[in-house]
Amino acid sequence: MYDIAIIGAGPAGISAALTLWAKNIPFLWFGSQSPSQKVQKAELIRNYPGLSLISGADFARRLRQQVAEAGLEIREQTVTNVFRMGETYHILCNQEEFQTRAVLLATGVESVRPIPGELEFLGRGVSYCATCDGLIYRGKTIGVICTDKGQEHEIAYLASLAKEVYLCPRYAPVEVHGDNIHVVEGRPQAVTGGEAVQAMQVAGQSYPVDGVFLLKSAISPSILVPGLAAAEGHVAVERDMSTNLPGCFAAGDCTGRPYQYAKAVGEGNVAAHTAASFLRAAGK
Amino acid sequence: MYDIAIIGAGPAGISAALTLWAKNIPFLWFGSQSPSQKVQKAELIRNYPGLSLISGADFARRLRQQVAEAGLEIREQTVTNVFRMGETYHILCNQEEFQTRAVLLATGVESVRPIPGELEFLGRGVSYCATCDGLIYRGKTIGVICTDKGQEHEIAYLASLAKEVYLCPRYAPVEVHGDNIHVVEGRPQAVTGGEAVQAMQVAGQSYPVDGVFLLKSAISPSILVPGLAAAEGHVAVERDMSTNLPGCFAAGDCTGRPYQYAKAVGEGNVAAHTAASFLRAAGK
Repeated sequence: MYDIAIIGAGPAGISAALTLWAKNIPFLWFGSQSPSQKVQKAELIRNYPGLSLISGADFARRLRQQVAEAGLEIREQTVTNVFRMGETYHILCNQEEFQTRAVLLATGVESVRPIPGELEFLGRGVSYCATCDGLIYRGKTIGVICTDKGQEHEIAYLASLAKEVYLCPRYAPVEVHGDNIHVVEGRPQAVTGGEAVQAMQVAGQSYPVDGVFLLKSAISPSILVPGLAAAEGHVAVERDMSTNLPGCFAAGDCTGRPYQYAKAVGEGNVAAHTAASFLRAAGK
Repeated sequence: MYDIAIIGAGPAGISAALTLWAKNIPFLWFGSQSPSQKVQKAELIRNYPGLSLISGADFARRLRQQVAEAGLEIREQTVTNVFRMGETYHILCNQEEFQTRAVLLATGVESVRPIPGELEFLGRGVSYCATCDGLIYRGKTIGVICTDKGQEHEIAYLASLAKEVYLCPRYAPVEVHGDNIHVVEGRPQAVTGGEAVQAMQVAGQSYPVDGVFLLKSAISPSILVPGLAAAEGHVAVERDMSTNLPGCFAAGDCTGRPYQYAKAVGEGNVAAHTAASFLRAAGK
């Protein structure tokens, strides 16, 4: 049993991690070692106090260096589900499960909105997790919509199981190849079906499939954590960054606009303080 | 008529200023050019994302440099009162008055609590503003409790008017001198009187006075802005940093704990965004 897990390693997650570290509170930390494309592509940042006119890439480099100097470890595992049972959070990362007393969500925002049918068929043919659900589609035909190049190994895994894979890549360059991987260019439009998924629609074409995997860098928090209250498409939080679930805190872009580094960093700090108080009150 | 004034030039005020500047919104800015003692005395900061293990003094230096590079001007004037009439804020700085559509409070927190009698006698012998109320005490005997060395010129001004000045300095070294200035060592304990102030109590001694000036680096926001709602001794704010007064926003330590740079900087950023939306909606 761990005290707390941070999910996400963008500016909000890093701010929370540095604050827990400074407060000497051990934590589990899930996220990507490499900064998000969003941070890397950010142009000159003009309004981050303490760093004049810094590029997104330089800012990301500084944050990573700071994390390394503090000796903090980021687990490069995609968290696919967080659920609360009693006073414990169960955190599922593909094949592994971790238990914590508290969780701090700093998952960012998916700039890609859900496509029609995605949420409707979730669990009935739509999946966000190749490792979790891949085996269901052994010998079958699947669609894969992937927005994150970092997940190409998941595509390869799916191709090793499925008969045919229609891959709709929303990144470049595509470097996963296979006889049964058919790249489908264009914008994904919908997942359709009846009781279960029957087809994936891409750029006006319909591809008959038994299931569709959506491989993203971030899963929407309300899908990740069942029962988490949302407000206008973001995690609903109080001023102290607590959510409707006791012991669950959120910070950064996932809580809403403005999508700014300073805001993310401030919220990560506050969420860490509130989480620390929660753990203290829980007798930890 | 100006669009907006920022009051305060600590991390929250600076973050707000940089964000308004980046958004190309002109603003008035009141504050101290030199960083607060609190920032200067801060030991190593371990959890400010982007700057590893930086001292408070170095952080302050960086912030000032960034403000200078952006060409932003801080008016070294103490704001003594902000009041709202119709849709306009009137900002009083000793002898000058400015009018704005919006105001962003980043005044920090006074670590010194009000002493007994201070709030009770405010306006009945207690004053925070030498320039505003000095003339009332021409030829009379006054007490001065000063926590901010930067206000010594105000003490000199008061001494030029009053018959006798009992000065209780809460800073060092004292460099204001005069035949009628009597330095009183020790902790100020109370302001006492009946209808009006009659005495100042310091370290167990009672000094008969006609009025008491409390010269501080920051005036409590709820005293500064009549009608501003407070919560647990801080400015009550929503998630978007708006207060109960339309067009009045707050950020940083004045809105509550944690008193952390990252939190202050995040709130300054958010307050500036919300203020910008307010001005836009107001047709500016």
